[in-house]
Amino acid sequence: MRAGRLSVFAAIIGLLSGASHPAVAEDGYDLWLRYHEVDAPSWLQSYRSAVTYLVSEGGSPTLDVARAELEQGLSGLLAGVVPVRDTVAKAGALVIGTPQASPLLAGMQLDLSGLGAEGYLIRRVKVDGQPATIIAANEDSGVLYGAFHFLRLLQTRQPLENLDIQEAPSLRHRMLNHWDNLDRHVERGYAGQSIWDWHKLPDWVDPRYIDYARANASLGINATSLTNVNANAITLTPMYLEKAAALANVFRPYNIRVFLTARFSAPMEIGELDTADPLDADVRRWWMDKAEEIYSLIPDFGGFLVKANSEGQPGPQDYGRSHAEGANLLADAVSPHGGMVIWRAFVYSDEEPDDRAKQAYTEFVPLDGEFRDNVMVQVKNGAIDFQPREPFHPLFGATPETPLMMEFQITKEYLGFATHLAYLAPLFEETLEARITGEPKGPTVADVIDGSLHGYADTGMAGVANIGTDRNWSGSHFDQANWYAFGRLAWDPQLDSGRIADEWLRMTFSNNENFLEQATGMMMSSREAVVDYMTPLGLHHLMARGHHYGPGPWVEGGPRADWTSVYYHRATPQGIGFDRTETGSNAVSQYAPKVAEVFADRERIPEELLLWFHHLPWDYRTSSGRELWDELVHRYTRGVEAVGEMRETWEGLAPYVDAERHRQTADFLAIQEKEAKWWRDASIAYFQTFSRRPVPEGYEPPEHTLEYYQSLSFPYAPGN
Amino acid sequence: MRAGRLSVFAAIIGLLSGASHPAVAEDGYDLWLRYHEVDAPSWLQSYRSAVTYLVSEGGSPTLDVARAELEQGLSGLLAGVVPVRDTVAKAGALVIGTPQASPLLAGMQLDLSGLGAEGYLIRRVKVDGQPATIIAANEDSGVLYGAFHFLRLLQTRQPLENLDIQEAPSLRHRMLNHWDNLDRHVERGYAGQSIWDWHKLPDWVDPRYIDYARANASLGINATSLTNVNANAITLTPMYLEKAAALANVFRPYNIRVFLTARFSAPMEIGELDTADPLDADVRRWWMDKAEEIYSLIPDFGGFLVKANSEGQPGPQDYGRSHAEGANLLADAVSPHGGMVIWRAFVYSDEEPDDRAKQAYTEFVPLDGEFRDNVMVQVKNGAIDFQPREPFHPLFGATPETPLMMEFQITKEYLGFATHLAYLAPLFEETLEARITGEPKGPTVADVIDGSLHGYADTGMAGVANIGTDRNWSGSHFDQANWYAFGRLAWDPQLDSGRIADEWLRMTFSNNENFLEQATGMMMSSREAVVDYMTPLGLHHLMARGHHYGPGPWVEGGPRADWTSVYYHRATPQGIGFDRTETGSNAVSQYAPKVAEVFADRERIPEELLLWFHHLPWDYRTSSGRELWDELVHRYTRGVEAVGEMRETWEGLAPYVDAERHRQTADFLAIQEKEAKWWRDASIAYFQTFSRRPVPEGYEPPEHTLEYYQSLSFPYAPGN
Repeated sequence: MRAGRLSVFAAIIGLLSGASHPAVAEDGYDLWLRYHEVDAPSWLQSYRSAVTYLVSEGGSPTLDVARAELEQGLSGLLAGVVPVRDTVAKAGALVIGTPQASPLLAGMQLDLSGLGAEGYLIRRVKVDGQPATIIAANEDSGVLYGAFHFLRLLQTRQPLENLDIQEAPSLRHRMLNHWDNLDRHVERGYAGQSIWDWHKLPDWVDPRYIDYARANASLGINATSLTNVNANAITLTPMYLEKAAALANVFRPYNIRVFLTARFSAPMEIGELDTADPLDADVRRWWMDKAEEIYSLIPDFGGFLVKANSEGQPGPQDYGRSHAEGANLLADAVSPHGGMVIWRAFVYSDEEPDDRAKQAYTEFVPLDGEFRDNVMVQVKNGAIDFQPREPFHPLFGATPETPLMMEFQITKEYLGFATHLAYLAPLFEETLEARITGEPKGPTVADVIDGSLHGYADTGMAGVANIGTDRNWSGSHFDQANWYAFGRLAWDPQLDSGRIADEWLRMTFSNNENFLEQATGMMMSSREAVVDYMTPLGLHHLMARGHHYGPGPWVEGGPRADWTSVYYHRATPQGIGFDRTETGSNAVSQYAPKVAEVFADRERIPEELLLWFHHLPWDYRTSSGRELWDELVHRYTRGVEAVGEMRETWEGLAPYVDAERHRQTADFLAIQEKEAKWWRDASIAYFQTFSRRPVPEGYEPPEHTLEYYQSLSFPYAPGN
Repeated sequence: MRAGRLSVFAAIIGLLSGASHPAVAEDGYDLWLRYHEVDAPSWLQSYRSAVTYLVSEGGSPTLDVARAELEQGLSGLLAGVVPVRDTVAKAGALVIGTPQASPLLAGMQLDLSGLGAEGYLIRRVKVDGQPATIIAANEDSGVLYGAFHFLRLLQTRQPLENLDIQEAPSLRHRMLNHWDNLDRHVERGYAGQSIWDWHKLPDWVDPRYIDYARANASLGINATSLTNVNANAITLTPMYLEKAAALANVFRPYNIRVFLTARFSAPMEIGELDTADPLDADVRRWWMDKAEEIYSLIPDFGGFLVKANSEGQPGPQDYGRSHAEGANLLADAVSPHGGMVIWRAFVYSDEEPDDRAKQAYTEFVPLDGEFRDNVMVQVKNGAIDFQPREPFHPLFGATPETPLMMEFQITKEYLGFATHLAYLAPLFEETLEARITGEPKGPTVADVIDGSLHGYADTGMAGVANIGTDRNWSGSHFDQANWYAFGRLAWDPQLDSGRIADEWLRMTFSNNENFLEQATGMMMSSREAVVDYMTPLGLHHLMARGHHYGPGPWVEGGPRADWTSVYYHRATPQGIGFDRTETGSNAVSQYAPKVAEVFADRERIPEELLLWFHHLPWDYRTSSGRELWDELVHRYTRGVEAVGEMRETWEGLAPYVDAERHRQTADFLAIQEKEAKWWRDASIAYFQTFSRRPVPEGYEPPEHTLEYYQSLSFPYAPGN
């Protein structure tokens, strides 16, 4: 207590006397779009000579925002106005545009054939003998993405001398899913309220929407679903469609299309119908009319994202119809307008299955080939629910005729909310790199979703957003990295997570090499630390009920067994783990034979997935030589220690980071360490009641009794 | 629609190309504590020669923040560092402190006897022949208030040459009431979530709490009740008390004491008791222990704010005890620690009264003299509920032995939420200036609450806060003025509302005289416009059910008649208005005889209160010569027109205001005009069904049918 008070006073004084103006200055609002003056004189000089003015021929809202971003960015980075001129007259021009609109670029006879609508070319050229740089694309959206790429080069201190970059996105739909309700509550949101101020829309358009669009465009994100997948039919009423249209107007210049979630029973709730049966003619007519209405307000409306027959949501199965019949109903409605339907595969029927992990596969594989062309099925990375670690979802590769869209969770529902530092790109990467056939060089999940394996007509990746009204957007500074990494991977699923971390750190904090080495290391080990202190060795779904904050391995009872923890860990005095081999639920059989074979073999399965697929005795010998119980305690402990090391590392990085962002991160790491220990201690105390074994020598026993941990209550944890 | 889209694009381009760095810059976060360089060269020169350095002897957390604020403020205003020195060595010293800690000030033999603990002296003096300025006080808190006053002099362009200011607050408790829930929802809040991030407290202390404290201290606000009066017992659990203590630690240097709301049934809900009877010995012991626990964590805890036996809240009447017995229970618990209890008089019993307006008076006057010395009774300005206009509450003056604390509502629950511009100081002033005996020079409500009339032992004023996580704190820029005005009036209830507006405008926007004249005019007429378009001529409580957004004069039925609109307007084909004279509820009899006599006389009553007290025929002749129905239509229309004039005025003020704040205000005024028309049209359409009279010539009929207005639904209006 005493120490706490002192530190508060220190903070007060420090902030007030140090700050030149507002006490809150470096608050993270600018995200990675910080255009501060290049701090290394040699780089600054080199950049200043490379770019002295802008030339932009042609005009469109998208080209206008691209040029404005370059003006703003270059003026900041180069600490001086970078003027816009009509023609190339001297060295240092940055020429942007499309050959269609720019005679200058057209005259260069560029080969842009491989770039599609959204790709771009950045190249160092000579114009009339003068060195210049061009950002060229087939469409204005490509120019915009190229502009952000160019700014990133300066932000990350890349040389501009011999540029010849060609980039095009691997996936067509790069999309955020906001789980935002109309009352501004964000389900599983830990960064304040929804940024959509529905009440004041469409009359008041918050300038923050523009910065949201800028941030997404800088990553290539080109779609956003505004509303919670646990959908509200009111979203589709005229009053709310006008509000969505106002947002779409802001996003359009940034090449971002708006999607809405569709509540399947909307025809009954906001229409006059007494059924929502997808084969009913009136229902079909209602959705056709509704689509017509939407497109009259939002001509580039993306389409519907649908969660149906899952966790109590209505759906086609309520009428004995299949998911395909439900999806096709909506697909037919938006098809005349060029829209699409994204149908979520995160489903489970009302009856308890023998294994929830099997259900999406079981329901969707038989439907392969039955969906309309403009339907994609959106699949979570794993078959349970965004756990710190899951094996890749068995649906990937199992639907050659149905384009699958990846669904990652950017918000950290199960990874410590906003305060825990967990860089998720390694988690995303682990899934994307998984070999679906088990062959060492065989196709990966990335090959499935980018369409290369099955020749999908459409491709995409969705991330459940971690964005809210918090000043720093994502609840913590390091959570911005997860938004960033998602966007970069949606553009190119082959990108390396470490490289993304480096890039983000440079743009967000510092280009100092010492800082980068240490901070990247901290980020790259962070998710594994969370796995260790929450769910080591393949354990999963052990969180407290409802809010998912803190440990709850003892959770049992309630409406359904597969919403409890005991269902998943299956601890007994004999052992622990979920037997998903032939002797158990046989979920392994949903994978390709070689994958199944490895997962089913307790000796060959990657040890980090051990208890996901196997129920093993407490004295099972793990690869470390430790018995299973001892290994669990070891890993829990290792996770806590890793957070301690992150804290130490971060303390040492104070010279490289402004005081305000450094302090918040340091304080959050302190919370993380406290809560990591809570997870460890509560888990050990609980599982010890089954293992009946002592905490091995050299490891601390839990600080409190199991009853203490079970007594803790957090009725107002956010995001519930 | 088309125009809307164009304006969005204009905004996008304007914001991006104009801003040098973040698109969102002038966002209002700094409130009235803007320390921008003084823009008039002559003033700047005069200030620079008057203040060249700071001298601060002695040290304490409060003195430290006072000095830091002066350093920050003067450095900004004078555009140069103002150093802190040990001694007066040359001209231009600003010497701050108390004679106890400062030998320099002690040597001046100042008479500070009239200043109390919180007052201060600002005086131009000579020290060793050198011109200097002193800010002296008996206590450090007075120095802090003096520092803010001094900065305000520069911010508002006052001369510093012959300063001799002595100020002391008229009221002891100057307090914000936050109606903030533990889940961060703010009841009747229209500015985002609660700024209290309970989930992360006490480990993460948001720097914004410091700016909150600075803003309040700059006004002299010295107390804050953190939690909703619809209280949650969990507030008083150890986990949450630690969180409140962390906030108290931040606020302490700023002379702000923390209060908490106490749920009367807490001993049953978080204790082990099966009663909350105030006369039960275990209950008394429980509260004594709880107070002990609180004070061990928060040594300067202010005390409890209690809403009991009102709107379903538990209270002493549940056990057949009086409000006094309930209040005294808690008062005895905090008394040993110097704490107090603030007991709200906003009560009504479960049975429907003949007139809700009478209930607080009826319940509390008989209890006068029965409360402990450390109890204050907090009374809303009017007897219904923060309507755009109410007559002053009849309790003021009726309890000579019970100190009454004023409760104003700063948040605009009934005045258009965050988007309508309604400057509330004239409303506050109207109540404070009301003559309680009806004598032209007789005592006012202000004389009651400042204790001068009855010699109250304690005095105070509370305002229901309009503060949230919105970047601009209050939901709109002009709503900041209501926080400001409340604070200034709590310090000195005799202040003039126009002077406060001028002061706030200077500090927040501009010192330009043309701007000030027009903007002050706009503010000063704004609340009357709201009265006109919502509730003219003394009508009241006509809003939609639940959320209180928009018109609902047709609201009837439901759990209680006194929660409907028809209960209050009593419109019939014969007439309209609530007869509160002898022939009706006789609420007039609760006022002093001369006041009652005027209110009861339809010819002498101020016309703006006419229908509050009288039920009158539609053809009643008003002072304008118009019949009542026509006069209503006239006033509704006048209100809408007034908003149109405000819009025009504001457009003309663009040269004086940054683009970002100008635009938001302009957009909000457009919303206000649209909604003012909605209020007018819906009200006329509804009342016309009773009056059966045409809309008089020259006035527009309602745009839509009554059915249309009744069909509108706003299930997600904020603040509910």
